[in-house]
Amino acid sequence: MNQRNKPVFAGRIFSVALEDHRLPDGRMATFEMVRHPGGAAALPVLDDGRIILIRQFRPAADGTIWEIPAGRLEAGEDPVDCIRRELQEEIGYRAASIRPLVNMLSAVGFCDERVYLYLATDLTPVPSALEEDEFIHPVVMTLKEALRLLDGGAILDAKTQLALLLAARLF
Amino acid sequence: MNQRNKPVFAGRIFSVALEDHRLPDGRMATFEMVRHPGGAAALPVLDDGRIILIRQFRPAADGTIWEIPAGRLEAGEDPVDCIRRELQEEIGYRAASIRPLVNMLSAVGFCDERVYLYLATDLTPVPSALEEDEFIHPVVMTLKEALRLLDGGAILDAKTQLALLLAARLF
Repeated sequence: MNQRNKPVFAGRIFSVALEDHRLPDGRMATFEMVRHPGGAAALPVLDDGRIILIRQFRPAADGTIWEIPAGRLEAGEDPVDCIRRELQEEIGYRAASIRPLVNMLSAVGFCDERVYLYLATDLTPVPSALEEDEFIHPVVMTLKEALRLLDGGAILDAKTQLALLLAARLF
Repeated sequence: MNQRNKPVFAGRIFSVALEDHRLPDGRMATFEMVRHPGGAAALPVLDDGRIILIRQFRPAADGTIWEIPAGRLEAGEDPVDCIRRELQEEIGYRAASIRPLVNMLSAVGFCDERVYLYLATDLTPVPSALEEDEFIHPVVMTLKEALRLLDGGAILDAKTQLALLLAARLF
């Protein structure tokens, strides 16, 4: 249980605090903690079995990387509503079926972000919903091709790796 | 490329800055960024095929969760040296073989942490190396049992989920 916080940063994306927590042995200890509202992400699968990944510019990776569509939860937002919105904005598709895969804690050593991972199927294009965006480009490929990219070290994003490996057990 | 930083927090585990980066279209934008030295993690596999997970207290998860042995890189440290040390400290084993699985970017939207994931085999117990620790408890189980925990939603840590799914493709 959190006993005392010393806030050190309050941003638009996350906040940081020095938090005192009681350890299992009863002692107190201070932890550096990133608090994040969490996110939702989905692997979109077309009716022909091919999947859609995106190429996205990420300063934290020093460039453009492979990811699945994803977004940050707004306050109180249902993760399913969040991923429906992101699928329309990032790849221009409406998903009739959103099935949960797993929840993941991204970096539990210092951050509470939880990502709700889904499989999105029964996709219908909604071209008008696709935002003008120079930084996100959807790419259609087979799951086998994506797994080859992963095995070759070209897919580094954790939620994307996880979604691909979970999908590989289903299909 | 990073152009300008405004540091907002410098901790023992990570630092935080407001960073200006040039976008692919040439404009500049400011990003909230967690900078982390990175980590190493390994799935330990015993000669009989069983694996070792740990139960670890994590304030970010509000309790004790399932993980694989892992540690933060020291400055300039080889991830293989890091995970060798952590395997001795956290589960009391020396690994003669450390094979790379993948590298993962934990939370690339706002954090540069990269975790080097390995498979650790040819394990020899080194009981004297096991630190007195109230907060980390090793548990031996089959990979199948671990995958059942994952599928049931009981394993939430991303690096642990990833290592188990990668191992499931190898064994």
